[in-house]
Amino acid sequence: MFPFRVINQETTEDVLDMASVIRVVEQAYQMKSSQQATLFPLIFHEFVEGRADMDIKSGHLPQADIFGLKLVSWFGENDKKGLPQLVGTVMVLDSQTGVPQGILSGEHITCMRTGAAGGIGAKYLARRESENLLIVGTGHQAPFQIMATLMTMTEIKRVYICNPRSPEKAQSFAANIKENLLTRFVSKYAGEEYECYASRCDVQFIAVDNLEEATRKADIIITATPSREPMIQEEWVKPGTHITCIGADMEGKQEIDERLFAKARVFVDDVGQAVRVGETKVAVKKGLITEGNIAAEIGNVIPGHVQGRQDAEEITIFDSTGIAFQDLLTAAHILKVADKRGVGTIVDL
Amino acid sequence: MFPFRVINQETTEDVLDMASVIRVVEQAYQMKSSQQATLFPLIFHEFVEGRADMDIKSGHLPQADIFGLKLVSWFGENDKKGLPQLVGTVMVLDSQTGVPQGILSGEHITCMRTGAAGGIGAKYLARRESENLLIVGTGHQAPFQIMATLMTMTEIKRVYICNPRSPEKAQSFAANIKENLLTRFVSKYAGEEYECYASRCDVQFIAVDNLEEATRKADIIITATPSREPMIQEEWVKPGTHITCIGADMEGKQEIDERLFAKARVFVDDVGQAVRVGETKVAVKKGLITEGNIAAEIGNVIPGHVQGRQDAEEITIFDSTGIAFQDLLTAAHILKVADKRGVGTIVDL
Repeated sequence: MFPFRVINQETTEDVLDMASVIRVVEQAYQMKSSQQATLFPLIFHEFVEGRADMDIKSGHLPQADIFGLKLVSWFGENDKKGLPQLVGTVMVLDSQTGVPQGILSGEHITCMRTGAAGGIGAKYLARRESENLLIVGTGHQAPFQIMATLMTMTEIKRVYICNPRSPEKAQSFAANIKENLLTRFVSKYAGEEYECYASRCDVQFIAVDNLEEATRKADIIITATPSREPMIQEEWVKPGTHITCIGADMEGKQEIDERLFAKARVFVDDVGQAVRVGETKVAVKKGLITEGNIAAEIGNVIPGHVQGRQDAEEITIFDSTGIAFQDLLTAAHILKVADKRGVGTIVDL
Repeated sequence: MFPFRVINQETTEDVLDMASVIRVVEQAYQMKSSQQATLFPLIFHEFVEGRADMDIKSGHLPQADIFGLKLVSWFGENDKKGLPQLVGTVMVLDSQTGVPQGILSGEHITCMRTGAAGGIGAKYLARRESENLLIVGTGHQAPFQIMATLMTMTEIKRVYICNPRSPEKAQSFAANIKENLLTRFVSKYAGEEYECYASRCDVQFIAVDNLEEATRKADIIITATPSREPMIQEEWVKPGTHITCIGADMEGKQEIDERLFAKARVFVDDVGQAVRVGETKVAVKKGLITEGNIAAEIGNVIPGHVQGRQDAEEITIFDSTGIAFQDLLTAAHILKVADKRGVGTIVDL
């Protein structure tokens, strides 16, 4: 029998702070692109077409001495049963011994590592002096994207918030987001760190209903919607803009005009996944670009092996599809912190 | 957060009894062959060639309202670290909601469901009046095979035990096995059931070092070894014999002469897996049989959709490769019993 730590959602919320997750996800991307890590084949199963599915993403990170998996269920009709639609669990094992280390609630891990991805995309690909951030989508993921980007981009002055389906939602989101960020993210820090991140939230949060107008002003655009058709049109995007696409993670999903890929410098988290299920897939399918036109995986940009943005006029795209390594390394980070703090439940397995 | 049950190895040993596992595995086989269940693609990863690997077997059993996975690590050098070489965990989720139900230590589940497979092979394919059982292999799995077969086959009088590499091991195994069976398996029962299964152990356990001689006497042969070359030769096997092959589960492993497949009526647990990694693979590769010569999956024999043995002279083979459904349904059975008895550790996930 082994000591085995179970970490519930509440504990993942207590333990994780965005600055640490950004650091961890940067490591995960670099390990991914170092060719030493192995992503295992994705398992996907649909229980009821379009209404209930699950996937298992798994892999091995030898540089972190871990392997493991994240299993995510999506049951669209769960709200009728008083249950969340998305339920995820992450399991981490020691890759030197094969012994399981722990199992963790995956929802908050997923939110945090996805937010971190947006912050990292901007950090390495946007112009440093970017002042205007546009967030498309006001769902669960939006605050995570905003917080991470405010942490990595020091010059942001305005955050435009657009919900193409519901301007009212954008209004109420904009009205509450600052308080939301301070409570959920900044309150984790103390002293100078607290001051620093609190001052980062001291920007204008502006609800917009004209997406074209907001796009034309934006230095950084992050799309985090379940959209199935392009919302951001090619001709709206000004030179020098950076775009991170979060929402597209399967066949049929698309957030931005695929013609943008033909003129932009394109980065991804995982080439195979981006071409298969990410935002990149439509552009590749339509022959606007080939896999060879992808400049690099972000994991090669972070250590400087490949240049990110080449000049101030370039449009850059980061297609963030989400990879198992982000979850695994974030989960391993939680297990380490939990061990130090003595949180979570240790059981014998 | 969800209540989530963690079941350690000790509890799996307390909860499981062989008669129940035989019943559960029969159900698992039938669900498998009913075409309603879905086996997800196997994930296999080698950490160090020939020394450390892991696999993830997963699937969905709609008739049992569950899906899930078994992750098994094999680290050949773990004994130097005072750790077991094989570590397995099974995770079960509700396929109506996607919510995780529990995680279980997988070692004892695997041993029990594999033993049950041997008992079921004999039950449906051997001659009812079979008196002589030959077990090849005296490893961890051998007692499970013997107990299950004594439970399903009422006329057994003699159990021949052969370890082709170490006659001494066969001697000590034979000297202790009856006590071992009574302590580990039969002691779980009370009253009439106890009497019944205890009397089934009242047979002769005979260590043999001449495998040919023992094979010529055997009505039922079960091979459970890590052998990489055929041990049982074709010409040794008498008409009417049933053979269950347990050991071969990957490329390179083989226990019986592949020519036996050309003259036997062949059954498997899963056609694809048997042909790819099971005992059947060599016969298919050498062109002695094709996939089409496999009479049926055992799951079609159990409900009577396909006839098992057709006459008393026929040689039958059951290639048991081990399928995720056996683990998942056994794990779901444990979770049900644990819920009734209030055992295991319930944590919030």
